[in-house]
Amino acid sequence: MLINGQACDTLNAQDRGLLYGDGLFETLAVRSGTPLRWERHLQRLLLGCERLSIPDPDVTALTVEALRLCNDRTHAVLKLIVTRGSGGRGYRAPPRPQPTRLLSCHPWPDYPPEHARDGVHVRLCSTRLAQQPALAGIKHLNRLEQVLARAEWRDEEIAEGLLCDRDDHVIEATMSNLFMVSDGQLYTPDLSDCGVAGIMRTMIIETAATLGVPCTVRPITRAELSDATELLLCNSLIGIWPVRQLDARKLVPGPLTHRLQQALESHHD
Amino acid sequence: MLINGQACDTLNAQDRGLLYGDGLFETLAVRSGTPLRWERHLQRLLLGCERLSIPDPDVTALTVEALRLCNDRTHAVLKLIVTRGSGGRGYRAPPRPQPTRLLSCHPWPDYPPEHARDGVHVRLCSTRLAQQPALAGIKHLNRLEQVLARAEWRDEEIAEGLLCDRDDHVIEATMSNLFMVSDGQLYTPDLSDCGVAGIMRTMIIETAATLGVPCTVRPITRAELSDATELLLCNSLIGIWPVRQLDARKLVPGPLTHRLQQALESHHD
Repeated sequence: MLINGQACDTLNAQDRGLLYGDGLFETLAVRSGTPLRWERHLQRLLLGCERLSIPDPDVTALTVEALRLCNDRTHAVLKLIVTRGSGGRGYRAPPRPQPTRLLSCHPWPDYPPEHARDGVHVRLCSTRLAQQPALAGIKHLNRLEQVLARAEWRDEEIAEGLLCDRDDHVIEATMSNLFMVSDGQLYTPDLSDCGVAGIMRTMIIETAATLGVPCTVRPITRAELSDATELLLCNSLIGIWPVRQLDARKLVPGPLTHRLQQALESHHD
Repeated sequence: MLINGQACDTLNAQDRGLLYGDGLFETLAVRSGTPLRWERHLQRLLLGCERLSIPDPDVTALTVEALRLCNDRTHAVLKLIVTRGSGGRGYRAPPRPQPTRLLSCHPWPDYPPEHARDGVHVRLCSTRLAQQPALAGIKHLNRLEQVLARAEWRDEEIAEGLLCDRDDHVIEATMSNLFMVSDGQLYTPDLSDCGVAGIMRTMIIETAATLGVPCTVRPITRAELSDATELLLCNSLIGIWPVRQLDARKLVPGPLTHRLQQALESHHD
């Protein structure tokens, strides 16, 4: 692990990342020494910094450090964290924050290969996402809702859990975004009030456009899921997982999901 | 600083407290080597652990460490943090978490003594608190809303900022709880959906009962604040601050606020 460029496994315990979750993170797939979709993840990180008024981290250092850490990895996960650093008085941030950069490389998770091919079993969580437009979309460090939602099940057969807001809109899953196919068109939830705007979600929206498939971002109610002919989950590590079962309801991984999977395999930027 | 009983200023950077804000904290006043209202803070911490399904930390160790750290301090602040520790896979917690205990002692903040006597100038924040019953009441480490709210003003004359939820209920201030006096009775916001149930808030509710002053916990709309004859803020460090100005409106620290201040000075448990 690298903390502000130094090989180190421990962080100053006064860092605001710990005290308040005052920071952001990114999780990237690494292939043959290269962190995939680096520019996109970097841009989302910088957008998050802007939203939280955290000064931009040193982007050159971040890039050099990421490449250094991934250099000898053929298949791994790179995690970046940027916090507002230490200091300030209580919640009040210091006048000139010195952001902390933490980069770590982790083994590739052992997701079963059938997940991408045959689809996954998903449940609807009872944990609701709170509506907070000030934090929606960005990948900040306040993740207790996801921790609580993921703690709802232990059944190893269930790969993910869907989350709704208080108004019964479905938003995302604990670690992935959701798309639904209905009448041959793609839909994905609006994330103005809650949820993380994933990099893979953006890539699917873009890929749908290149394939000529209409894709709409809008609020989606839980009830609408029953109209879906296909459901899929996505993130930067899993790519696309079709949903083969949502609670009691069975689905079949469908043709649009396969087209998107094939199209995404062919480009990694 | 003591981390799991060891004098240490750095934390394992894989701790879930940093990665997800997966933990709780307490802030206590220290007088003559003693952390005040220790039992109450400990009970709230344990309630938080229960709500988040974090195993109880070693309470004996926590108590011994707190006393050891405060031993030579006449007037200071003790901060406790308990996290779920490290491990797990993504948001999923490890099957047998080993909580991390962090204890640190800090200088007493230089709050002007006039604040308690003459009252403070307070503003209404535009940041709204998200409604999340699963996290309401406990003092968890997901504090970005408070960081964003506190960043709304830099005017040193303004001591605190009030926060409403999306339904225009006033909930609390960034670092303190709120009481209002109306028709000679005390009211404090219901915290079922958001906010931190402060130790000093509970003490005021109890003190009101011993003084024979009716005190009601209920939702309070922002509009109702204009009916208030007195407003006060409270937490474990500041005790009680009367509000002398809320945005443009001036108030006079009133008799009930003074009675509560006097009654609270006489007992510290």
